[in-house]
Amino acid sequence: MPQLQRITIASSQFHNQDITLTAEQQHYLCRVLRLQSGDRFIAMDGMGKWWLAQLAGTEAQVLQLISVETELTIAITLIVALPKGSGFDEIVRNCTELGVTCFAPVVSDRTLLNPSPQKLERWRRIAKEAAEQSERTTVPTILEPVPFSSSLSMVANEKYICEARGDYPHLLSCLEKKEDGESNFNNEKTIVIATGPEGGWTETEIEDAIKAGFQPVSLGRRILRAVTAPIVALSLVAAAHEI
Amino acid sequence: MPQLQRITIASSQFHNQDITLTAEQQHYLCRVLRLQSGDRFIAMDGMGKWWLAQLAGTEAQVLQLISVETELTIAITLIVALPKGSGFDEIVRNCTELGVTCFAPVVSDRTLLNPSPQKLERWRRIAKEAAEQSERTTVPTILEPVPFSSSLSMVANEKYICEARGDYPHLLSCLEKKEDGESNFNNEKTIVIATGPEGGWTETEIEDAIKAGFQPVSLGRRILRAVTAPIVALSLVAAAHEI
Repeated sequence: MPQLQRITIASSQFHNQDITLTAEQQHYLCRVLRLQSGDRFIAMDGMGKWWLAQLAGTEAQVLQLISVETELTIAITLIVALPKGSGFDEIVRNCTELGVTCFAPVVSDRTLLNPSPQKLERWRRIAKEAAEQSERTTVPTILEPVPFSSSLSMVANEKYICEARGDYPHLLSCLEKKEDGESNFNNEKTIVIATGPEGGWTETEIEDAIKAGFQPVSLGRRILRAVTAPIVALSLVAAAHEI
Repeated sequence: MPQLQRITIASSQFHNQDITLTAEQQHYLCRVLRLQSGDRFIAMDGMGKWWLAQLAGTEAQVLQLISVETELTIAITLIVALPKGSGFDEIVRNCTELGVTCFAPVVSDRTLLNPSPQKLERWRRIAKEAAEQSERTTVPTILEPVPFSSSLSMVANEKYICEARGDYPHLLSCLEKKEDGESNFNNEKTIVIATGPEGGWTETEIEDAIKAGFQPVSLGRRILRAVTAPIVALSLVAAAHEI
C-alpha cells in the first residue's frame, strides 16, 4: 500500500485495537499530512510489524495486520569508523534505505570526531525517518560509539573489513563464494562489515581485525570516500542476498 | 603513489617535457598544498594518462608516465532524472568515485528541477575533483540535460532502467547472466543505466524505455531515494565487472 502514509508508533501506545497518539503524532497526522477522522494510515512498531490503522479523533483504531517483505533475510551490522563532519548522517540515511540491521559507530586510530550524546539522538531520528521512507518494517539499531578494538569481538557468520589499499579479494566475490556454501537452517545469518575513516585503517587495526576473524576485502580499484564506502558495501551485501 | 598530490592539467599546457601552470594551479600547488620547487606531484590529463611531475618555479617538468589501472573495463553511461535541490551534486560525486564514464542528466515527466547553465559547470567541477580524489585517470563527461525521451535512443550493449515498483528482476542477476554470455572482443562493452526522479518513472516512460530496448530492473525490495538509487546501481555494475 505505497499510497498510505506511514508512522512509527511505540508498542506502549497500542491497547488492544486502539492506538493512543502523542501530541506530536496528532500534529503530524492532522496538520502536516492533513488526515481527518476516518482516514487510513500505516502504523509501524519499528520492529517488523505494520498495521492498517484509521484515524478517530485524537486516537486511531487498528484495522488489520499488514504483511510486508521489505526486510533482508540476513542481519547486517555495519561497523563504521566515524567520518568527519556530518558524514555519519549520510551513512545512516543511505544504509538504512539499503537494509542494515545495526550501526556500530567506532572511534579508530585515525578518527578525528569525538561524538556528543546529542549526535546519537540525531542519528536515531534519521534512521527512523529513513526506515519509514524506504518502507522498511524495522528501524535499525544504533549503538553507542566505542573504540574500534572493542567492536572486534562481535560474533557473526561472516566478518569483513574493507580496505582500499592492498591486494584483497573483492567483497562481492567473497559473498558469492559464501552463498554457494552451507546455509544454516533456522538461524538468521549474520554479517558484520567494517569500513574505515578518512585515511583508512592503520596496519595494526587491519592485523587485529584479521586475528579476530575478519576477512579483509576490496570495494574496487578506486579510492572511495569514508562516506561512500559503507553505501557500496551495503549495496553489495543486500543485492547478493536478494537475487 | 598514493602519497603524491594529483592535479588535472589540460593537454594544451603540455609542451614536450614542460608543463605551463595557470595562476590558479600555481596557487593550489604552492599555497594550498605547500609544494616547493623540486617537489613532485601527479599531473593527470583527465583522459586516462598520469605523469609524475616536478615543480620548477611557475612551471613543472614531466619526469615519467605512470601506469595506473583504476578504470573499469566497461563504459557506463548513467541516465539520471534530475532530483530536486542539490541532489545531483551528490550523485556526480559518488558515481564518479564508482567509475562512471558519462552522466546524462534528463528531465522526466515527474522532474521538478529546470537546471541552469551554471549547474552544468558546477557538476563538471565536482566530477573533476571526485576523479582526482578517487585516483581515477579519467574525468567523466557530463552531458547537457535533455528530455528523457531524447536519451532513449542511446546505443549500448546493455540498457537498464531501474524501477522500484513492479516485479522486475534484480539488476545484479541480469548483470551476472550477461557476464556468462558472449564477450565482444576488441570493443569496450557499453552499459546504459537509467534511474528515476522522486516519485519514480511514469508508466508511459517505462513502456517507452522497454520499446527502446531497456530492461526494467529492481535494486531491491526497499524504496530508495532518487539520490541513492544511482549509487547502488553503479556499485553493482562496477563490482560485477571487477570480480
